[in-house]
Amino acid sequence: MSTIEAIRPEEIEKRSFEIIEETIKAQGIPVPFSSDEDNAAEGSCRAGDRVLCRKIVYRCIHTTADFDYASTLRFSDNSVDIIQRLLRDGADIVTDTNMALTGINKKKLETLGGRVYCFMADEDVAAEAKKRGVTRACVAMERAASLHKSNPDKSMILAIGNAPTALMSLHKMHSEGIFTPDFVIGVPVGFVNVVASKELIMSTDIPYIINEGNKGGSPVAAAIVNAVLYSL
Amino acid sequence: MSTIEAIRPEEIEKRSFEIIEETIKAQGIPVPFSSDEDNAAEGSCRAGDRVLCRKIVYRCIHTTADFDYASTLRFSDNSVDIIQRLLRDGADIVTDTNMALTGINKKKLETLGGRVYCFMADEDVAAEAKKRGVTRACVAMERAASLHKSNPDKSMILAIGNAPTALMSLHKMHSEGIFTPDFVIGVPVGFVNVVASKELIMSTDIPYIINEGNKGGSPVAAAIVNAVLYSL
Repeated sequence: MSTIEAIRPEEIEKRSFEIIEETIKAQGIPVPFSSDEDNAAEGSCRAGDRVLCRKIVYRCIHTTADFDYASTLRFSDNSVDIIQRLLRDGADIVTDTNMALTGINKKKLETLGGRVYCFMADEDVAAEAKKRGVTRACVAMERAASLHKSNPDKSMILAIGNAPTALMSLHKMHSEGIFTPDFVIGVPVGFVNVVASKELIMSTDIPYIINEGNKGGSPVAAAIVNAVLYSL
Repeated sequence: MSTIEAIRPEEIEKRSFEIIEETIKAQGIPVPFSSDEDNAAEGSCRAGDRVLCRKIVYRCIHTTADFDYASTLRFSDNSVDIIQRLLRDGADIVTDTNMALTGINKKKLETLGGRVYCFMADEDVAAEAKKRGVTRACVAMERAASLHKSNPDKSMILAIGNAPTALMSLHKMHSEGIFTPDFVIGVPVGFVNVVASKELIMSTDIPYIINEGNKGGSPVAAAIVNAVLYSL
């Protein structure tokens, strides 16, 4: 039997992050924010602020207990600085799951002037998706584009934690010059078109944080947003 | 670059489950529901209906893209049959995260006569936790116990996707004869007391589905509930 560690509630998160850091060091996992050149993953110096980059990676591990995130998270150049600035300046967030919407710290977001939207459960979205033979996520991204068009001065971050078709729809609109969000958090999870849809976004010039491979999820999308929010 | 697979929206989930099955077979992962004795994990025959057991495991993998769940999910004797019967008969669910509450199919649950509750964000829960120096999850479990006391004929399933202290509080109340839920889904995630809290519940006679080790999360808790709901 494992032993219960006596710990005060307010110490639990701090202790968790210590364990994550100790484990990463002990296992010699290459991380994209390391100041140790030998241990630094490729492209490590280009994501922006290393402390925030580390906090993002740690929070993804914290929410999944999965150390794969230390080596699979991909950051476009200066992405960490860009998303921090966007949130500080009141950017809105559109997500593809109500679970991610629930997990994002809306109180903190709102104090900065941002709001979070999810159109996935809207009845008209479901009806239109069915009629057109596309996914609800595809229609939900078109709703995001409309929202952006109605207020083009408001920055928009897309936080995609579930549907690869959201990223595919987004890539199509971007290619056609219809809609380009200011930032994409691309962490859909699963087995059908998940890897390819992430690669599509990484081939564009849209700033991103993406988890390469099949893994991701709503809590990971929320964890990335919250890591940045808590830095402000 | 990976290639986008053309697939109709209504086929995506089915295709995902096929890929999961193919991967499990290809990698020879021992699973707790196998009909192949050589490939069956220990205790496999005692969880109950093997088809439902497999659906639960697959849905956990589907929601995380993490095949560890094939070998770390633990089922108490007949647990799969017990939780199916409980939900069919209108059991309520209490969860420790609003993300799990969001992820559970409430429409289906309500048609069966059940409701899902989460007390974590209640202001009085936060206030009481702070005053007593315990976690909100601990107080939330006491609220679950009160709810059960107010209507003892209504069965209650606890779906714990985040807080080990919820399982610890529950174990304490059970040991003291104060409160015993009808079923525990125990999939907290993290590093502080997560493993030990799961072991505590597995040492009791409460029927459970638990993910051994550090992994779990709100989507996993919701996936287990939904796998059973969709079987009804």
